[in-house]
Amino acid sequence: MTKKIIERIAIFGAGGGGTSAAAHLTTIGFEVRLYSQDENALKPLQEIGGIEFDAPFGKGLAKLAMITSDAAAAMQNADLVMVVSPAHLHEKWISAAAPYLKENQTLFVSPGHTLMLIPHILRSHGLKKPVFCETATLPYLCRRVGPTKCRISRVSDFMVFGGFPGVESERLYQIVKSVYPSIRLFSNVLETVFPYGNAIHHPPALLCNAGRVEATGGKFRHYFDGITPSVGRLIDAVDRERLTVAKALGAETMPFVELFYRMGYTTEEARASGLAYEAFHRSEPDKWIPAPPKLDHRYFLEDVPYGHIIYSELGRLADVSTPTINHIIHLASVALGKDLKADALTLEKMGLAGVTKEKFLSLIKNGFDD
Amino acid sequence: MTKKIIERIAIFGAGGGGTSAAAHLTTIGFEVRLYSQDENALKPLQEIGGIEFDAPFGKGLAKLAMITSDAAAAMQNADLVMVVSPAHLHEKWISAAAPYLKENQTLFVSPGHTLMLIPHILRSHGLKKPVFCETATLPYLCRRVGPTKCRISRVSDFMVFGGFPGVESERLYQIVKSVYPSIRLFSNVLETVFPYGNAIHHPPALLCNAGRVEATGGKFRHYFDGITPSVGRLIDAVDRERLTVAKALGAETMPFVELFYRMGYTTEEARASGLAYEAFHRSEPDKWIPAPPKLDHRYFLEDVPYGHIIYSELGRLADVSTPTINHIIHLASVALGKDLKADALTLEKMGLAGVTKEKFLSLIKNGFDD
Repeated sequence: MTKKIIERIAIFGAGGGGTSAAAHLTTIGFEVRLYSQDENALKPLQEIGGIEFDAPFGKGLAKLAMITSDAAAAMQNADLVMVVSPAHLHEKWISAAAPYLKENQTLFVSPGHTLMLIPHILRSHGLKKPVFCETATLPYLCRRVGPTKCRISRVSDFMVFGGFPGVESERLYQIVKSVYPSIRLFSNVLETVFPYGNAIHHPPALLCNAGRVEATGGKFRHYFDGITPSVGRLIDAVDRERLTVAKALGAETMPFVELFYRMGYTTEEARASGLAYEAFHRSEPDKWIPAPPKLDHRYFLEDVPYGHIIYSELGRLADVSTPTINHIIHLASVALGKDLKADALTLEKMGLAGVTKEKFLSLIKNGFDD
Repeated sequence: MTKKIIERIAIFGAGGGGTSAAAHLTTIGFEVRLYSQDENALKPLQEIGGIEFDAPFGKGLAKLAMITSDAAAAMQNADLVMVVSPAHLHEKWISAAAPYLKENQTLFVSPGHTLMLIPHILRSHGLKKPVFCETATLPYLCRRVGPTKCRISRVSDFMVFGGFPGVESERLYQIVKSVYPSIRLFSNVLETVFPYGNAIHHPPALLCNAGRVEATGGKFRHYFDGITPSVGRLIDAVDRERLTVAKALGAETMPFVELFYRMGYTTEEARASGLAYEAFHRSEPDKWIPAPPKLDHRYFLEDVPYGHIIYSELGRLADVSTPTINHIIHLASVALGKDLKADALTLEKMGLAGVTKEKFLSLIKNGFDD
């Protein structure tokens, strides 16, 4: 019997995504160590020795090899270090992992889509030639439904995958696909940043439903009732700008409606229309999802600073204008009463201030040469 | 007995505003001729010889001296020619009146707030030194409720009034206040363009409720349910930009909430807060008003091209930036799928392309010197 490429996996993050990954990967035969800095979140799991799950692949208790707040212990001899967290927590998890990361360990972030933020943090921890890989989206449609339980409604069968630097993508792909066969190889992390769908549609949809969200506390179906033809037109305009920026940087990507179709969320008919309104209105999996209860919600707080703003920033780098995107960033900030640019994924935050487009593309492909 | 300053009034426009003015002014003793180009709208009124009304000053049938589609007849020996129409119809009515307008007749437009558009049209009809006056708002809260009937729920007790050129304002004020004692004298038509309240709040409120309007067909209370705290913050931001533009042009105006209070629409408490959200949420007269049934509605179609865009244009003239206003113009156009700048009140449309701020201010005050 040949040795498996990956045997031991350290999962960073014990929210819905991290616990779902822990349950799923245990079920399919990996040794999983679950790490979090939040000891209160770990305690109930430690008491039962694992995580309960309700998923398409079964129900039960996944016994975990380790549940710990000790990053060194979780990572020791792990073949894969997998970070599963919202984008704004990347800095926290990557900083925790950096001191113990070995060259033979694969660092895999899912969802990633923070472009050069992770290499920038790793370098600030002394790793001069950082290497990692990521997917554009989470591998699961899931929620943590209680202190010891997660619910998975879908395991993704299509995930855009890329490595940093791009010259490592193919090698990293061969490793990670032994864990997630549904990943699709793209050239580099520039091609994982663009297909992050939520970033495209959440901000315009929430802005155009701001009054309703606040008046009703979100008592309507976000996608089915909230994305009407006019809201769809705004999403389509955002998407056109995103595609123009991608093209100017030579990044392969696809229109949002196509992506949404490939992820299994909408119909052939909607795909043929090319319209966001049709895509959402005909989306069975999304139909029931309620609107956010308030504007102070990740649809603005995460998807503007780590979505719209990165498109706008890449547009700035590539000398492509993104008016609709910029207008939404501004109005969302005014409506929220909070400057969404303050902690956003700017060029500065990724250590790219003053970098030319050519230098940026070379970094993405070849990594750091100092 | 001294002769009254005004005896005969020609009213241009047979919609809600025009018929309400006809009913009211007849009731208080003026001889009224009602003019419209729309013969179908006139016919039922001609059959009963006037307009039925239901108003705070009584109910009944106001018999009119003339109901006609002949502008020359309506205007003959009229002391006052009063145009009552939405802004985008000014061109039509002013063009109809221009050939018959005499120097001793007062041209009064209510609501006006189209700045130099009217003088520009009059000049294109050969009136080299045009003179007119206007209010910022309609004199009535009213609706035409049937082919022969109008309903007036309120006669305004505060209207901002100005003349063109500004040096004529005082003289025109003495004339018009004999008809409408509730007008307040301001310096010129730059000071009537700013207090047009609807233009401030309708576009942001409709944009932030686009999803709800389309999903429900407007089945919610526009002001009471639709203007939530976040929508209020956007209105406040628009208002700050409007005030900055006004200040840069030396025009006297007041914050929207103050104006709204003075017009009798909200409470002392709301006025003290200075917040649009409070102003609307505490507005009894506005509470019941339903939302528009669709986005293709004057809240966008009139209040962006003749409201937000004129603030933005005046900002351009005065070298003051109006980012929130510009963002709303753009996003409303994208959401609507229609370029709201196309027929807007631009500097070009008013014959002001390339005019400097100084020349503009001199025109407003002194009129044309050619």
